[in-house]
Amino acid sequence: MDWTDGLFLLGSAVFAVTGVLAAARQDMDVMSFLIVGVVTAVGGGTLRDLILDAPVFWVEDVAYVYVAAGAALATFVFEQRFRATLRAFLYLDALATALFAILSTGKALALGAGPGVALLMGVVTGIGGGVIRDLLVGHPTLLLSRELFMTPVLVGSALHAAGIALGAAAEPLALAAIAVTAGIRAGAIRFGWSFPDWLTHQPLG
Amino acid sequence: MDWTDGLFLLGSAVFAVTGVLAAARQDMDVMSFLIVGVVTAVGGGTLRDLILDAPVFWVEDVAYVYVAAGAALATFVFEQRFRATLRAFLYLDALATALFAILSTGKALALGAGPGVALLMGVVTGIGGGVIRDLLVGHPTLLLSRELFMTPVLVGSALHAAGIALGAAAEPLALAAIAVTAGIRAGAIRFGWSFPDWLTHQPLG
Amino acid sequence: MDWTDGLFLLGSAVFAVTGVLAAARQDMDVMSFLIVGVVTAVGGGTLRDLILDAPVFWVEDVAYVYVAAGAALATFVFEQRFRATLRAFLYLDALATALFAILSTGKALALGAGPGVALLMGVVTGIGGGVIRDLLVGHPTLLLSRELFMTPVLVGSALHAAGIALGAAAEPLALAAIAVTAGIRAGAIRFGWSFPDWLTHQPLG
Repeated sequence: MDWTDGLFLLGSAVFAVTGVLAAARQDMDVMSFLIVGVVTAVGGGTLRDLILDAPVFWVEDVAYVYVAAGAALATFVFEQRFRATLRAFLYLDALATALFAILSTGKALALGAGPGVALLMGVVTGIGGGVIRDLLVGHPTLLLSRELFMTPVLVGSALHAAGIALGAAAEPLALAAIAVTAGIRAGAIRFGWSFPDWLTHQPLG
Repeated sequence: MDWTDGLFLLGSAVFAVTGVLAAARQDMDVMSFLIVGVVTAVGGGTLRDLILDAPVFWVEDVAYVYVAAGAALATFVFEQRFRATLRAFLYLDALATALFAILSTGKALALGAGPGVALLMGVVTGIGGGVIRDLLVGHPTLLLSRELFMTPVLVGSALHAAGIALGAAAEPLALAAIAVTAGIRAGAIRFGWSFPDWLTHQPLG
Repeated sequence: MDWTDGLFLLGSAVFAVTGVLAAARQDMDVMSFLIVGVVTAVGGGTLRDLILDAPVFWVEDVAYVYVAAGAALATFVFEQRFRATLRAFLYLDALATALFAILSTGKALALGAGPGVALLMGVVTGIGGGVIRDLLVGHPTLLLSRELFMTPVLVGSALHAAGIALGAAAEPLALAAIAVTAGIRAGAIRFGWSFPDWLTHQPLG
């Protein structure tokens, strides 16, 4: 295990925490919390691996599931304390989303996919877990919200895929793409950025 | 690229347009429209390929995604004009659904599946994209509607799978199956065909 | 076909019946019932096979789909009679769920997965079909209910996976794990068992 594995395990824990805080509903028992945490953490990467016909990452290394389950359990126990620092968790979530999305474009490229597919794998990984979670708990998905969530992932993944196609050095490029994704997402959290009205569906008069 | 590839690209564009027109909701931004269009266009075929353990078709040729995204964007920009010709798009959608479903039974048979599985792959491809789209935008799925959508696909796919099993010539059979599927679906759009009450669930008194 | 195949076909029929009884809504036509029955019966095993990159079981043997479709059709026709014996079907469902879940941990182990992944495959198989069905018909998923459904599956699958890892004899262990899963689930049906309040989410005051 090198240090990036440690980062990804931390990212899984963060996804589980924010997933449980977003999904908590009255009458959900601790088992539902575990499922919500695990699904949010590993759902997007699972879709990516199925589409690329790669071995599912947590079948290869089940530690991702254990870490997510542990983080979900901790969130159940310490919910009030975690909610008091929700904003910090949201920024960590922005960073983890960026990390996983850019890793996924890199993984797709390494498996021989073209830049278009690699970009799509970044988006699938970045938003897939949250979308599946919302479906499971009956919450409107992020498609129905004006909050910027897909866009930072798409921009960063496009930058990464295009940079590799143009021959940029892999590690600085990945760091820049992660910074761009996390930066735009953090701006959306902090300043409420969204698309202007003319890029948003208006009811037809 | 032979001429059938061109047809399938056109079909993807049609699915994206009708998907966006069906799913448009207030507060959806342009990025949500892109996702809705792409998911409607490629969702069913993706499920088919995953189930058959075939390479996902748009990973092999990402043009399907680009065409769907472009059509979704055009629908966002020209929504009022497209809505004015909604009925024409619905008939095109019937044709594209038939084309994709019958292609899918053929693909399944070519991959060695039996006629039963081939028929099911036709249904999965024909309705999968629309079902995933409805889930993503919180719209009741077609399972909850009396509109005939699955039935034309099932009938045409069954005809195709049975014909191949009985040794019919592949191309005329496929054209007939496409005509049957598109014809029943078009009749449902035009005349509001649905199952009679005795084939519909009645609340228990 | 040995006698376990017969058991699994019976289990598929039971899932289809309970699935249709749970999902029946006004205006659903007979085709929707067929889809609901088949999806409930084969959905969980399909997810398992996709995640393990194994051939999807009903692509290998489509009889599972035919049996589920036949059972769904019978439920449509004889709904009032079936509903009168709903409780008996629920106990059969508990047994079939246990059977499929423990089979799935065994299948995962046989394919080389570790005990953690095997346990998760038991849960995915045991609850996957019902969750997909609930999404398709717009019903709240079991994650939002306090009813014990995941827990019996998790306990039995954990027992099975741990037993195999510790070198227990396969057949008695599987029977014990099935009995534990079905027993806890039957207790939940009969006595309304659920997690105590302190293991259930409380609205934050």
